[in-house]
Amino acid sequence: MIKKTLNQNIVNSVNGIRLSSVYSGMYNSERLDLSLIEIQAGSSVSGVFTKNNIKSPSVLICEKNLNKKNPRYLIINSGNANAGTGKKGYQDAVDYCTFLSKATLVDINEILPFSTGIIGERIKVKEINKSIPLLVDKLNKDSWEDFSKAILTTDTCSKIVSKLITLSDEDIIITGVAKGSGMIQPNMATMLSFVATNLEINKNTLNNLLNTATNVSYNMITVDGETSTNDSSILISTGKSNLKYDDLSQTDQKIFQKTLNNIYIDLAKKIISDGEGATKFITINVKNIDTQSNGKKIAMSVANSPLVKTALFAEDPNWGRILSAIGSSETKISDYTKIEISFDDILIYKDGGLHQDYKEDKAKNYLKNKNIIINIDFNIGIINSTVWTTDLSYDYIKINADYRT
Amino acid sequence: MIKKTLNQNIVNSVNGIRLSSVYSGMYNSERLDLSLIEIQAGSSVSGVFTKNNIKSPSVLICEKNLNKKNPRYLIINSGNANAGTGKKGYQDAVDYCTFLSKATLVDINEILPFSTGIIGERIKVKEINKSIPLLVDKLNKDSWEDFSKAILTTDTCSKIVSKLITLSDEDIIITGVAKGSGMIQPNMATMLSFVATNLEINKNTLNNLLNTATNVSYNMITVDGETSTNDSSILISTGKSNLKYDDLSQTDQKIFQKTLNNIYIDLAKKIISDGEGATKFITINVKNIDTQSNGKKIAMSVANSPLVKTALFAEDPNWGRILSAIGSSETKISDYTKIEISFDDILIYKDGGLHQDYKEDKAKNYLKNKNIIINIDFNIGIINSTVWTTDLSYDYIKINADYRT
Repeated sequence: MIKKTLNQNIVNSVNGIRLSSVYSGMYNSERLDLSLIEIQAGSSVSGVFTKNNIKSPSVLICEKNLNKKNPRYLIINSGNANAGTGKKGYQDAVDYCTFLSKATLVDINEILPFSTGIIGERIKVKEINKSIPLLVDKLNKDSWEDFSKAILTTDTCSKIVSKLITLSDEDIIITGVAKGSGMIQPNMATMLSFVATNLEINKNTLNNLLNTATNVSYNMITVDGETSTNDSSILISTGKSNLKYDDLSQTDQKIFQKTLNNIYIDLAKKIISDGEGATKFITINVKNIDTQSNGKKIAMSVANSPLVKTALFAEDPNWGRILSAIGSSETKISDYTKIEISFDDILIYKDGGLHQDYKEDKAKNYLKNKNIIINIDFNIGIINSTVWTTDLSYDYIKINADYRT
Repeated sequence: MIKKTLNQNIVNSVNGIRLSSVYSGMYNSERLDLSLIEIQAGSSVSGVFTKNNIKSPSVLICEKNLNKKNPRYLIINSGNANAGTGKKGYQDAVDYCTFLSKATLVDINEILPFSTGIIGERIKVKEINKSIPLLVDKLNKDSWEDFSKAILTTDTCSKIVSKLITLSDEDIIITGVAKGSGMIQPNMATMLSFVATNLEINKNTLNNLLNTATNVSYNMITVDGETSTNDSSILISTGKSNLKYDDLSQTDQKIFQKTLNNIYIDLAKKIISDGEGATKFITINVKNIDTQSNGKKIAMSVANSPLVKTALFAEDPNWGRILSAIGSSETKISDYTKIEISFDDILIYKDGGLHQDYKEDKAKNYLKNKNIIINIDFNIGIINSTVWTTDLSYDYIKINADYRT
């Protein structure tokens, strides 16, 4: 049972985790760009990674090492994705992980590397190695906010969420950080995410908790339908509270999962709010449909439609494009005739045509809001599915046309 | 055997086909917006239609009527798609088809309606009916060019292709017209297409010829990954030459199919050249892959990637985005390690990394061309697949943000 919730803006450190961030030279101008996370021995670590068939060396190393041991150190850089770099890029990652393993006296298989930034350029191994002593030296349990800044690329703001709940008289903390603003799509985003809790959770359960949370958060957002080569999401249980997940009542286990889900949903929404060039935060609710899978496909088809996105950018209630995007999803639904489309509570489309009370001026006025809700009610089932996305603006093109110049 | 090919710029009329176009009032300012095609009795007519699950009334009527009879009249309007208009929209189409059937003394099931333009607004039946007598009066076998203008919406130019080949000493003509520039995707585009030949072809064979041609043309183009509710493609055989397809030698049958394919490919390329806001015409060749389906999926994944499209708009050889888009296709290929990526003959990526001889300046210079060729060689099979697309520019957003205002 939740007995207290602290101020959401406070970032609670998680016992058993220390962090540090420095400028290593990944960017030409000085900014934090390299971070280290130290995880106390005895912790459990779970991860989910990009579904892109071409994975960056760092993702390949993470997947390999996570199968063997619970990692002790995570090393994370922005400015270079170390992707599309082949065997040389793989060796580069091994090289700086080897250097870090010597500096920290842990096995190289207990180190996970993460990279985000431009694809196809060799990563600066020397600069990383040179910064490792300072990173180790600076490790501190309160450095979450610096870390949240160091991993940003085209992001315009850091994304950090922290919650404290009391279960069985014990303070349980969950704190997480994410980055990502473009190449954001189902099956993870160009996105790095690191969440930690002091609740003791065994690895199998941790995997399940992470999968459940991912399916209602990162897998339900899209900016541009792109899946990166580097997406990685890590969940850590340090077990430094006096409480084990297995000892919780079923109700408290549900509360913990729900709190964890909300951490991930908050991070996912922060990513969408910071979507490249976004001027709108768009929630697409598919309601009363037959299956979760169909609901998600329909919502994603609308969310990824450039025509819907440009209309919303223009604050133009061109609902016909929503209808067309619903129809063009590859899903086969038994009945498309009961669909109702509304902007929040403004009913637009019903009985196969424009609703009699619909007034375009009202819809136009509604679309001036920054937060837009599109409801698509199929009236054929009991499943609801929500996807979050952005509009498509001139600035998306500006940001992505200018990324390397 | 091809014995002569006339000047490609000449539009050859097709005996058995007459056309007319007028301004009916679909748009506020005067322009051709309503057309009639008369097909002589005894012709064969084949059609393929949108795969969108929500089809416009006109598509529903076309599919129903084509199953029954060979149509005698096609009535085509721009300015209003008559889609998302429900039962009322369906009745509207029936109403003006009924009026046309009385004016032409043919059965209503021998009439096919086609509409393109804005979705969700009722079509102006009165204006159509008022224009029908003039349309009938103006029918003329040489009015292809007027027709090609009347069906345009956001298109900036008309798309018309005509070829004359001689088979067994007989002049065989194929002439076709298309429209479309946005909402252009696999499984047909927001696109109307009408092609006619004087070769006599039975309906089954005509269906096969059209399907084959569609699979190498309209199904291989994409502007924005959108599939409209109204896509329709019609192929007519008037049989007014003295030659039957069935009497042709196998070689001549192949020549005819190839000529027909080229008509459709030319029309498809014209649509892409006129893609909304397009500044580049992009050819994506996936080479030496295992299956046609995988080749198309990979090429489409690259073609529909907003990040690839914005990079090409910026003339930035950000090939990492091409690699990421290849990987993010849902296809499972056995081997991604042999991939070679090149801009035309400039080899960029090989053996899992940047090719040693690659010079970015050369690629940058190449990308200044209007026509860009991206080659993606998998080196694992013998199948090649080509998709045509555009870049993504500020103007795509401008055109689609301003469409109704």
